[in-house]
Amino acid sequence: MNNEKKKRFINELTAIAEQTVKHLIQDKYLDRFEPSDMKEAASLYIKSGGKRLRPAILLWSCGAVGGNINRALPAAAAVEIFHTWTLVHDDIIDRDDRRRGNSTVHELFTKNANKSMPNISEDDRAHYGSSVAILAGDVQHGWGISLMSELAEENGVDPLLTLHLIDKLDNEVLNLLVEGELLDIQFSHIPLEEITTDDIENMLWKKTGALYKFCAEAGSLIGINKKELDNEYVKALASFSSLCGIAFQLQDDLLGVIGDPKKLGKPVGSDIYEGKRTTIVKYAYEAANEAEKTLINSVLGDGQARKEDIENVIKILGDRGGIEKTKARSQYYIDKAVAELDKIPDSDYKDLLMSWAEFMISRND
Amino acid sequence: MNNEKKKRFINELTAIAEQTVKHLIQDKYLDRFEPSDMKEAASLYIKSGGKRLRPAILLWSCGAVGGNINRALPAAAAVEIFHTWTLVHDDIIDRDDRRRGNSTVHELFTKNANKSMPNISEDDRAHYGSSVAILAGDVQHGWGISLMSELAEENGVDPLLTLHLIDKLDNEVLNLLVEGELLDIQFSHIPLEEITTDDIENMLWKKTGALYKFCAEAGSLIGINKKELDNEYVKALASFSSLCGIAFQLQDDLLGVIGDPKKLGKPVGSDIYEGKRTTIVKYAYEAANEAEKTLINSVLGDGQARKEDIENVIKILGDRGGIEKTKARSQYYIDKAVAELDKIPDSDYKDLLMSWAEFMISRND
Repeated sequence: MNNEKKKRFINELTAIAEQTVKHLIQDKYLDRFEPSDMKEAASLYIKSGGKRLRPAILLWSCGAVGGNINRALPAAAAVEIFHTWTLVHDDIIDRDDRRRGNSTVHELFTKNANKSMPNISEDDRAHYGSSVAILAGDVQHGWGISLMSELAEENGVDPLLTLHLIDKLDNEVLNLLVEGELLDIQFSHIPLEEITTDDIENMLWKKTGALYKFCAEAGSLIGINKKELDNEYVKALASFSSLCGIAFQLQDDLLGVIGDPKKLGKPVGSDIYEGKRTTIVKYAYEAANEAEKTLINSVLGDGQARKEDIENVIKILGDRGGIEKTKARSQYYIDKAVAELDKIPDSDYKDLLMSWAEFMISRND
Repeated sequence: MNNEKKKRFINELTAIAEQTVKHLIQDKYLDRFEPSDMKEAASLYIKSGGKRLRPAILLWSCGAVGGNINRALPAAAAVEIFHTWTLVHDDIIDRDDRRRGNSTVHELFTKNANKSMPNISEDDRAHYGSSVAILAGDVQHGWGISLMSELAEENGVDPLLTLHLIDKLDNEVLNLLVEGELLDIQFSHIPLEEITTDDIENMLWKKTGALYKFCAEAGSLIGINKKELDNEYVKALASFSSLCGIAFQLQDDLLGVIGDPKKLGKPVGSDIYEGKRTTIVKYAYEAANEAEKTLINSVLGDGQARKEDIENVIKILGDRGGIEKTKARSQYYIDKAVAELDKIPDSDYKDLLMSWAEFMISRND
């Protein structure tokens, strides 16, 4: 990506991020949430930064088929908040205390529990934190669907198309996201020998690719404003975004090992402490000798592992090709994705989508 | 309620319960959920009994305005599964192990964790159980919304009315349900002196009345198949159902103290162990002497309380008028509700709604 293209991409992405947040933090939405802990919990991740890639892909896909991107704005806000509630619930499930350099929702309300309940015990505080986070994710889920309904009720999108998109998001896409999350948990308790890199990529696609695919489909269908599901442009954009989504998640796994902990807001090796089954670990494990396999098996998923052992495992991941092979897979998906873009007409939005694909694997946070 | 009326009511309610369950457990829905643990978790409470009162009020409200109740069936199934996901999440939050005589979702998957993960530790088992239950509630939430979208897509309901109902359910109603649940948790950690019976009734209405109100609104609007929100029949039925909803919850609290533990599938005094702030406790507390107040304060919310102390507290609740006053409030709401029914034309469905109102406070499980 040349510098000018990159600058334009970053500027447009930043503008969409600001527009999405501005749309979401309107009083007409935040006033829906009571009592005060819920208001704070429901908007926490919206106010705490984030790249807002999903709204961008949705709006650019709308523009790429010649649609009016302003009409799609509630859907862009919807996919962001839909993504957000899955983060809130996943953070409880993954026992993550930090996100984007701040406390996760459950962690914050564990710390704050005595604000509304002066006599609460320490044990009940942690349970209260998780309870608020469960409920906050629930209201955000509804917030996303409510935003989708605005497409027809306020923005002139065909009502039957709007209903189709709601059904697709809260049925097909939701079920894939949840399946991916549950497989991710189950994999972390299964011996490495019993999982293939295909299993892992398949799980990653469900966790991430499915929602990216939806963003492109929704954006382009709103752009043409017809429930024309076999439209060639819609199909090409959906496939493009779906493939980029896997590359995004592979890159996420790579950053978890070789990224800058400060930029990521996560400690080095957190994926290894958590026992995450990444393709990086699996490829390296396949090529490792017995001593290395023993070390990987003993350290992976040991939340109390010594820092030195974590560093040794990271070294094996590099030495045994885990990082290189995962980078190659990520590039493979991006190449396939970019080929899909050939099927749609040239436009500024197509250029932005192209930059976005490149950004997926060049980003460092 | 005379015997013939009661028999007819029970027969019709049973038929609707069967129809709702039959609609929900179709393969076309259950096939959506993967892996196998999710399929089992998502359908557990559907298969384990329950009165299905919400589908009944929805369908009878549809019939009471002259509508075709078959057209409203997906909405009846939707409100049942919507109610179900809130139970699944509330059971985690309330740390309830049992529901309807069986394990709650999180409890079952804590016990079953080693099925898919042979080497899981005991601590991770409990966390896995809660994680599955969080995700199961999430997919059921989406299932409910997806069922609502069928109204227009398959059953000929006006698309804009369908979108209005989806928005109402996943915005207004959801936010009230969650607010009620969060207030319920917060109240249990606040001294009894600081809460009024109005606070408690208000919380109960949010937890239960709001969804009952929606059931009547949705049913009657689908019945007239127009987005005619100020229709007199719709308003009367909504108000009727809303008032019955509070009475239902007051009766639930009464059964928690004076009900048959076998029929309820819950141990005697579980609300007292949990520290629930009910109007029963509050009314009795107001009339209690200092020694009784001290006992109530020390026992309420003490999960380890002695059985003898629990029995003494229950005795105070009776002796100090907590039970009588709560019964009177419940009757007050039913009387107000029944007056609303005068505004709609006579029909078999109106008779069923009348029986339903009486059943709210005469039921013993």
